[in-house]
Amino acid sequence: MTQKRGAFITFEGCEGAGKTTVLHHLYHMLEEQGYKVLKTREPGGIEIAEKIRTIILDPVHTEMEERTEALLYAAARRQHLVEKVVPALHEGYTVLCDRFIDSSLAYQGYARGVGIEEVFQINKFAIGDYMPDKTIYLDISPEVGLSRIKQNSDREYNRLDQEKITFHHRVYEAYSMLLDKFPNRLTKVKADQPIDQVVQSVLTNIEDYLRGIEE
Amino acid sequence: MTQKRGAFITFEGCEGAGKTTVLHHLYHMLEEQGYKVLKTREPGGIEIAEKIRTIILDPVHTEMEERTEALLYAAARRQHLVEKVVPALHEGYTVLCDRFIDSSLAYQGYARGVGIEEVFQINKFAIGDYMPDKTIYLDISPEVGLSRIKQNSDREYNRLDQEKITFHHRVYEAYSMLLDKFPNRLTKVKADQPIDQVVQSVLTNIEDYLRGIEE
Repeated sequence: MTQKRGAFITFEGCEGAGKTTVLHHLYHMLEEQGYKVLKTREPGGIEIAEKIRTIILDPVHTEMEERTEALLYAAARRQHLVEKVVPALHEGYTVLCDRFIDSSLAYQGYARGVGIEEVFQINKFAIGDYMPDKTIYLDISPEVGLSRIKQNSDREYNRLDQEKITFHHRVYEAYSMLLDKFPNRLTKVKADQPIDQVVQSVLTNIEDYLRGIEE
Repeated sequence: MTQKRGAFITFEGCEGAGKTTVLHHLYHMLEEQGYKVLKTREPGGIEIAEKIRTIILDPVHTEMEERTEALLYAAARRQHLVEKVVPALHEGYTVLCDRFIDSSLAYQGYARGVGIEEVFQINKFAIGDYMPDKTIYLDISPEVGLSRIKQNSDREYNRLDQEKITFHHRVYEAYSMLLDKFPNRLTKVKADQPIDQVVQSVLTNIEDYLRGIEE
């Protein structure tokens, strides 16, 4: 008898799409329904991954080359995956992860011009058999997303936020391409509506998915 | 009129093969012959690469997963390459680099069991069009190499040196496989002979190669 592993669900979207808020509510709602749930994001308190992330996000590193950046994200992803996500999945947890492989495909692969397919290959090396089972894409325009971030004083402004608006438009474009590339795994949810409605819509999608695999 | 770029020559071998000493002499000999020479090794004083290397070599990180390690080496390699090696090559320098892609193939790819082909792919992503033009492999048995290191009090003992002797045997085995895989690029030089003879043999090989590309 093999124990069925939990579902691995990731959340994607442009800056300010509301992933953090949605995940906060979703986590509690799924727990109330009796699911064992782990909510995480890279680097997720994993020491090595945290240190890698520090190198990536340090605003001093303006000279960082885009392929170096892609490899560092893949390295931090690998370590977070093997130390935190995989053990939880095998204990039967439903894992909700804020950003995963699609962020690298959109940001480094497309927006920075490294190439979606090439970045996909190094990420396949990093994640092995742990592609997400389901990915919720919170759809919001870069303008609305960035204006939300500026209003939110709790969140620290980092190197990525400083990028020009054209960069964020390229990220948005990339996610549209990924929705076409992975039509079964990715599900788009409109995120420019009141937060209660966004959460409800995401919850419905995830419940449908979880019921589907339980049958 | 395109300016011919300099030759990119890398040096490989097990721990204690004598790469540092050989490179030191070789550098001066080639300079005396009128070559513009850059001698380097990863991370090579490149700030981002140095920080990545610190994460890899910290003996505290016993939980580092082998694919994370392979990705970090590839990231440091990329940054050192684009910041230091590529500009020098385009200024016409002959670049002598202490360890490069073959070290990752031998150490992470084979000795740690990640897979030579898989590690080759992420390194191809990292180096792009800059495969070494020529690679000198200093051939020495792990036993002789490690006994040399222990006698050398100047060199700090790090996490890699602590590995069991069986690991070093696997590295040695891997280099033999790489000699078969890249017969044109890799040249084996016996390193268990007096240092003057090793240096002379390496110099002869490199002079032959450099004369070949100048013709």
